[in-house]
Amino acid sequence: MTTPFSLHPQLAADTVSVTEGPLSHVLLIKDARYPWLVLVPRRAGLVDYDDLSVSERTLLGAECAITSASLKKLFAAPKTNVAMLGNMVPQLHCHVIARFRDDAAWPGPVWGVGTARPYDDAEMETRLVALRAELIPAFTTV
Amino acid sequence: MTTPFSLHPQLAADTVSVTEGPLSHVLLIKDARYPWLVLVPRRAGLVDYDDLSVSERTLLGAECAITSASLKKLFAAPKTNVAMLGNMVPQLHCHVIARFRDDAAWPGPVWGVGTARPYDDAEMETRLVALRAELIPAFTTV
Repeated sequence: MTTPFSLHPQLAADTVSVTEGPLSHVLLIKDARYPWLVLVPRRAGLVDYDDLSVSERTLLGAECAITSASLKKLFAAPKTNVAMLGNMVPQLHCHVIARFRDDAAWPGPVWGVGTARPYDDAEMETRLVALRAELIPAFTTV
Repeated sequence: MTTPFSLHPQLAADTVSVTEGPLSHVLLIKDARYPWLVLVPRRAGLVDYDDLSVSERTLLGAECAITSASLKKLFAAPKTNVAMLGNMVPQLHCHVIARFRDDAAWPGPVWGVGTARPYDDAEMETRLVALRAELIPAFTTV
């Protein structure tokens, strides 16, 4: 009997759902300092990148490329960070973060820096609408 | 006229060459605190993950999976981090790092933590021999 996938409670607590990619939940981190998405493959038991099958790697790669390009376009971000760490939360998840030369952590990594700034409701709604308008059509091309 | 690929001088200074993957230079970071590889696709002009073509993503994904699994096997590491940041060095490069619950940065990310511990010559030679024995045959399967 296999364990079904369920989103890790810490990831659920730290994010809101944006949409579904072909492989992954696409989640927005509740930290308005950065446009910061997390992709979580809907497969039970994945921990590290080498746990993915070849076809899962292909799908996650497409999702990462789409989310990275979309964040740069939507937020006029000069670059993105794409990272799978998982030191704190052992369920495989991939961060895709728009980075700016004046952001709170630049040029360091974002993890563990300062305190998350919550979105207000209008700001969150605006962000989700923009992300969904960009990502949902793009994911249909995968 | 296209600019040919050349390894960024900072990456060259911080690493020694381990081997060549199908897409990337495979480099060892000169910091004996962690078994820490960097994959650098031999393509000019790449900055972010979304700059890769689909076929380049496929190759980099295979290289990442092989290096991640190899680090876990060789060093009995419980997990790896796989990350493309590039905030300091704009040439696309992918870190693949074996992590341990007693390492210098656990459970945080490794970047910017403390000071690199240099390898001594024998330790470096041992590490390179082990990595090459594992990686070179594995890359032939890609």
